[in-house]
Amino acid sequence: MEKAFRPNNLIALLTDFGGRDGFVGTMKGVILGINPRARIVDLSHEIPPQDIEAAAYVLWSSFAYFPAGTIFVCIIDPGVGTGRRVFCAQGEKHLFLAPDNGLLKYLVADGELQRIWEVANSKYVRPRISSTFHGRDIFAPVAARLSLGLDPAKLGASVIMPPARKEFTPLDRWQSGRLSGRIIYVDRFGNLITNFRAYSGEVANSRKLHIRLRGREIRGLVASYAEGGGKKPLALINSANLLEIGIRNASAAGILKTGVGEKVTVEWL
Amino acid sequence: MEKAFRPNNLIALLTDFGGRDGFVGTMKGVILGINPRARIVDLSHEIPPQDIEAAAYVLWSSFAYFPAGTIFVCIIDPGVGTGRRVFCAQGEKHLFLAPDNGLLKYLVADGELQRIWEVANSKYVRPRISSTFHGRDIFAPVAARLSLGLDPAKLGASVIMPPARKEFTPLDRWQSGRLSGRIIYVDRFGNLITNFRAYSGEVANSRKLHIRLRGREIRGLVASYAEGGGKKPLALINSANLLEIGIRNASAAGILKTGVGEKVTVEWL
Amino acid sequence: MEKAFRPNNLIALLTDFGGRDGFVGTMKGVILGINPRARIVDLSHEIPPQDIEAAAYVLWSSFAYFPAGTIFVCIIDPGVGTGRRVFCAQGEKHLFLAPDNGLLKYLVADGELQRIWEVANSKYVRPRISSTFHGRDIFAPVAARLSLGLDPAKLGASVIMPPARKEFTPLDRWQSGRLSGRIIYVDRFGNLITNFRAYSGEVANSRKLHIRLRGREIRGLVASYAEGGGKKPLALINSANLLEIGIRNASAAGILKTGVGEKVTVEWL
Repeated sequence: MEKAFRPNNLIALLTDFGGRDGFVGTMKGVILGINPRARIVDLSHEIPPQDIEAAAYVLWSSFAYFPAGTIFVCIIDPGVGTGRRVFCAQGEKHLFLAPDNGLLKYLVADGELQRIWEVANSKYVRPRISSTFHGRDIFAPVAARLSLGLDPAKLGASVIMPPARKEFTPLDRWQSGRLSGRIIYVDRFGNLITNFRAYSGEVANSRKLHIRLRGREIRGLVASYAEGGGKKPLALINSANLLEIGIRNASAAGILKTGVGEKVTVEWL
Repeated sequence: MEKAFRPNNLIALLTDFGGRDGFVGTMKGVILGINPRARIVDLSHEIPPQDIEAAAYVLWSSFAYFPAGTIFVCIIDPGVGTGRRVFCAQGEKHLFLAPDNGLLKYLVADGELQRIWEVANSKYVRPRISSTFHGRDIFAPVAARLSLGLDPAKLGASVIMPPARKEFTPLDRWQSGRLSGRIIYVDRFGNLITNFRAYSGEVANSRKLHIRLRGREIRGLVASYAEGGGKKPLALINSANLLEIGIRNASAAGILKTGVGEKVTVEWL
Repeated sequence: MEKAFRPNNLIALLTDFGGRDGFVGTMKGVILGINPRARIVDLSHEIPPQDIEAAAYVLWSSFAYFPAGTIFVCIIDPGVGTGRRVFCAQGEKHLFLAPDNGLLKYLVADGELQRIWEVANSKYVRPRISSTFHGRDIFAPVAARLSLGLDPAKLGASVIMPPARKEFTPLDRWQSGRLSGRIIYVDRFGNLITNFRAYSGEVANSRKLHIRLRGREIRGLVASYAEGGGKKPLALINSANLLEIGIRNASAAGILKTGVGEKVTVEWL
């Protein structure tokens, strides 16, 4: 049976608002006006504008490290001002506020979400809702009230869980044949993160693994980038247990001229 | 009669210091050394270097969403180290520390400010004042002491309110003829914010409004960017009640090759 | 005799992680999960990737302004995943966690550090250590436990202080002949910071000081950038008491086409 959510005053913000305009600060003002004890953590505000895929990865790779009771406010929202719905989703230990646009897809795929409600009750939002800044007018006040103990079920009707698509290709067993995947994220260092996943954190026979992208071949996994020399691409299992391709002290994305969506294949030879 | 300011431990920082150099962190260290209970919010540190206009907009569009008792520390300060004055201005519910360089101009225009003092008393600043980092040596310690309850009148002499210039052109009534305005801010998404203001948040007969900039014409207002298709510029009333021109999921500033200062005209046809 | 370190719940973070990927947010989640009362300050996350020199300057120029009891977590760590050691160093009033890669060199040169321990005890880190994200798996949990009062001596063996190299060239006395130095940091404004140091904050006979870099000559020091006109380079003693070369309201690094490592000479004429 699912447990009730117990807030801990922690609110983590994930947006594409950047640091320049005061959007994020304004949201914090609204939150602290409602819950002066809120502790607000910036997860990221540098998601590229409208890049839902990138936000989905950042959220999925980070949320589990926050204490139980944390509320995540996720606003990458190209549909702001339309009829798109806003969801409040309850995970095992956390709450997630996000537009209904796929931002939670990796959580759905992992079975992390237990219930979803639509944010519809106008009682918990600001009296006047702009058509361009729901972060200030809807997300911030709702998050603040949830952090004070508001029952998520009061926000609106229960929503049927979106269908889980297969997002990852497992690398955990010795496999034969060729597996096909793709780059799903490029981090600040230019490392290329793929959707191949080593659930246990390790890959059997990793020395025999051959990885190909853009006509380049990488043979075997290393334990850390420091093992690399020159500007040669390396592969390893990253801190989120995904196959990652990088170059020591350099940007693999820049040197290999590639990015999100690029096809990657792996094969044990 | 004006009310005394009652601090709430909240201090919001607005600077052009960027995130790279440790200037902001140093200021926070100074503040927390004086008031360990201070809660510090970053409003923005990515104001372009020396861009007082941009800071004036960000402050004006954000401050009202912070709880009563918040102190704003605003440091875009090309005159640092000269005789330029530093002001402590009291608004309806907030305090503002800023150089005397126009940063508060929209607050002045709106009649928000009630009193202004000069920050002159050396008792409340650091013992040694550098000529390049008043954020650390003057603004941070003064803000921290104000957040502990220091009476702003102790900072220095009362200053006569600067004359309010007309900063906005109202769009609230059905008007005839052509109105002339300009772009005053470009946000992170490349949206172009003008100084046309819809005080009520709406514009009568908005379908008949024609907007022109750089030889382009936009007919009528939309409710949200999501209504746009292709790379066509749209206009709407933004979350600060200003006329804003943007392009759905794209940078209007980039596509229209324009920015702050560009002339914009509106006309009801 | 050295004093025991008394934490104050303040943890300052200095990394090259940037704001985009969620690395910093994840670390904060880990810290707050262990010490819910921790107050976390971002010193900088925009250190250029793997730029240990830049981080060393930012840390050295900032740390003294934080309250006694602050713990600095410094992660510019190209050797992550190798056998490189992680240090916990005790200063006069602060603790510093950093890889053994020179990040603390200016603190060592100034005699700030009193003791150093190796972070080796697996009891205080996360149960599973990734090879790429020690910020999350080692630094964050260790910092959180230190902030709760963990004795640094329990982290591992005492380490012999690294030898102090001479990092600065003093400018405090009237000197004859030519002194040779270099640019050690370029700040967000494009100001060029050298390793010439005016320990007292002032330079005797500063009008007779001639500074040369890239074939340009600057005669005498000014008190603030505002004294400059045109795009002429100026020199002053900056807020960290170092000789700094800048251009009023412009980037000296951009205009003079120079950066870290460039030779600078000074001479009294």
